Amino acid sequence: MQTIANGICAPKGFLASGVAANIKGNNADKKDVALVFSIKPASAAGVFTTNVAKAAPVKVSRAKVAHGTLSALVINSGNANACTGVQGVADANHMCDVAAASLNLESTQVAVASTGIIGVPLPMNRIVSGIRDSAKALAPHGNLDAAKAIMTTDTFMKEIAVNFNIGGSLVTMGAMAKGSGMIHPNMATTLAFVTTDANIAPATLQTALSHAVDKSFNAISVDGDTSTNDMIIALANGQAENQIIEANTHEYGQFYLALEQVLIHLAKEVAKDGEGATKLLEMQVYGANSQKDAQAAAKAVCASPLVKTALFASDGNWGRIVCAMGYSGANFDVDQIDLFIGNQQVVKKGKGIVFSEEAVTHELSQKEVSVRAYLHQGDFSAVAWGCDLSHDYITINAGYRC
Amino acid sequence: MQTIANGICAPKGFLASGVAANIKGNNADKKDVALVFSIKPASAAGVFTTNVAKAAPVKVSRAKVAHGTLSALVINSGNANACTGVQGVADANHMCDVAAASLNLESTQVAVASTGIIGVPLPMNRIVSGIRDSAKALAPHGNLDAAKAIMTTDTFMKEIAVNFNIGGSLVTMGAMAKGSGMIHPNMATTLAFVTTDANIAPATLQTALSHAVDKSFNAISVDGDTSTNDMIIALANGQAENQIIEANTHEYGQFYLALEQVLIHLAKEVAKDGEGATKLLEMQVYGANSQKDAQAAAKAVCASPLVKTALFASDGNWGRIVCAMGYSGANFDVDQIDLFIGNQQVVKKGKGIVFSEEAVTHELSQKEVSVRAYLHQGDFSAVAWGCDLSHDYITINAGYRC
Repeated sequence: MQTIANGICAPKGFLASGVAANIKGNNADKKDVALVFSIKPASAAGVFTTNVAKAAPVKVSRAKVAHGTLSALVINSGNANACTGVQGVADANHMCDVAAASLNLESTQVAVASTGIIGVPLPMNRIVSGIRDSAKALAPHGNLDAAKAIMTTDTFMKEIAVNFNIGGSLVTMGAMAKGSGMIHPNMATTLAFVTTDANIAPATLQTALSHAVDKSFNAISVDGDTSTNDMIIALANGQAENQIIEANTHEYGQFYLALEQVLIHLAKEVAKDGEGATKLLEMQVYGANSQKDAQAAAKAVCASPLVKTALFASDGNWGRIVCAMGYSGANFDVDQIDLFIGNQQVVKKGKGIVFSEEAVTHELSQKEVSVRAYLHQGDFSAVAWGCDLSHDYITINAGYRC
Repeated sequence: MQTIANGICAPKGFLASGVAANIKGNNADKKDVALVFSIKPASAAGVFTTNVAKAAPVKVSRAKVAHGTLSALVINSGNANACTGVQGVADANHMCDVAAASLNLESTQVAVASTGIIGVPLPMNRIVSGIRDSAKALAPHGNLDAAKAIMTTDTFMKEIAVNFNIGGSLVTMGAMAKGSGMIHPNMATTLAFVTTDANIAPATLQTALSHAVDKSFNAISVDGDTSTNDMIIALANGQAENQIIEANTHEYGQFYLALEQVLIHLAKEVAKDGEGATKLLEMQVYGANSQKDAQAAAKAVCASPLVKTALFASDGNWGRIVCAMGYSGANFDVDQIDLFIGNQQVVKKGKGIVFSEEAVTHELSQKEVSVRAYLHQGDFSAVAWGCDLSHDYITINAGYRC
């Protein structure tokens, strides 16, 4: 597997665009409508927010993905179309209709995603113009424009593309995501879109996507606020002409691995770009009694405000890490834990040991900090990612609507 | 029921003290060892942290409370005696032994609590001296010294006393607690102690305490970090000479009500004094499908960093409130919600309505802000308390160990 250029436009048969439709109000030249188009109907799979206050585009796109194939995705930033009632659902459907008409498609072939402020009706005049412009702007190298158009408080674009061999055929996969972390439900925490020219049925793609999301986007936390708008959609248009990928085969394994790597890359980028974040935390938990315990412990550490403030200060306050694993719901004997911050051991069999403050502070001062916990209970392990909690998080979020 | 003076020393037969034993290092004159003493063995009940990384004093005191009666409580701040292994348990037991010897009691009659930094062995020489000093200092008006000695980052003391009539007998109840909120697991989130001269059996007292904690301390959140050291212990020494309070009687109801009011008062004080907090949030949820749903929704709002930063900025960003209820685990139809910030309605049937930004900002600028959500699903309601999230939280927690 190798990393290549062109993001979501890298796979055969995908075009994209991003245009400015003035949805963000006083940012008239900021791109805010994106379109992704496959020249052939593609197998579709999706993972959607578990928040019961689902935004209109989540409701609409979940039904569209259930049909099995999609040809286009239309996405806007600047307005989440959440808590907008019946009108919001009508607006989300209308976005699909307009995109479909512009592309000569059935409306069932278009899914929609939105991200931005909650509770404000979509400015449909501007949205409709934006969608029409984006259809005209579709291009084989429109990936950067699209990745820019889905950004909200993100400080950098998030895209990736890889290719790999499946049964003699070269398969390409591209993806883009927006953050900034799980920190901004108003801004729809995470939107991510995967394109691939692999030949794979919708159900198999869905299985792979659900598993890979569990190992990637479900393993990051910036502040634990689960958005009303979270959505990941994958499209596979078969243009690589590989033999169809069946579940439980070697080929499926190869495809899954690529998908997992692509999503982990994007998830880490989202965590790293968490609002106000100055560094990335990678929490590894080994020796748990179950997969669920390992994941719970790793995620609790990444979500703890106390761990995150200590990380911000590069302070080796390991008690907060043990405490977070302790309330995570994972079951373990605290007197068995070994804990390492970077390469420095700080806890042995549940007790603090003498360590070099200087060395630990040095580890915690890196842009990517790794912490390892060995629970010595069983054979399960998990990794989760998060970021530190800084003054800028407060500044960004205290004044968000203003 | 009326509020009276003297905190934990208000009930008949209770003495208390607080002394400085130099446990906090460079704060040699800051009180850090407290003692509470009942002249007669008292019915005891306790509620302890659910964190699996339980501190040594939690393990030791849980076993002591299980015996049914206690005569004394010894408490230190400045060091949590958590993640201290076998030595920690020995140290916690030794604290009980020293207090018992100083008071001519069996060691089984003394429980222990600690709060402060995790993972550092107790400085036992200073602790032992402190306990002996505190025994000599026991006094009928030692409640203020004791309440001061259990403080960590608290900015004000938290105590209360009330009296009320049960079957013709005047019963008195006192209590003290420390915070600052659920925000500081190193600092043992919450320690609270209740004294009463009521005549009530241990099992009945335990039932009342468990229920009242659910409505009070379990309904507050500052940052969702559940401490390794949380502990609430109630002592009832029977000196009021009321007829013994039996479960499911009118008298039990009177006693329970007083206990609930006392604990809610302290819990709100702890939330109000959350680290860096500038205001108190009271979140009321009505019309939920179940008690569990109502509590989950109310607590999720109080725990949401995004709600808390908006509250800090007095910003009527109600989407974050709906979003937090949405991911709380509570099941409801978002299109039925009505939401009020203070007296200003901001959401009607799940949709934002036009409101006066000025009026909402005014409501959010109060020292105590109340938000009401009507889910219109069923008949259950709950209330939870929290605080805002300010720059000072980051400052306090980023530099805590330094």
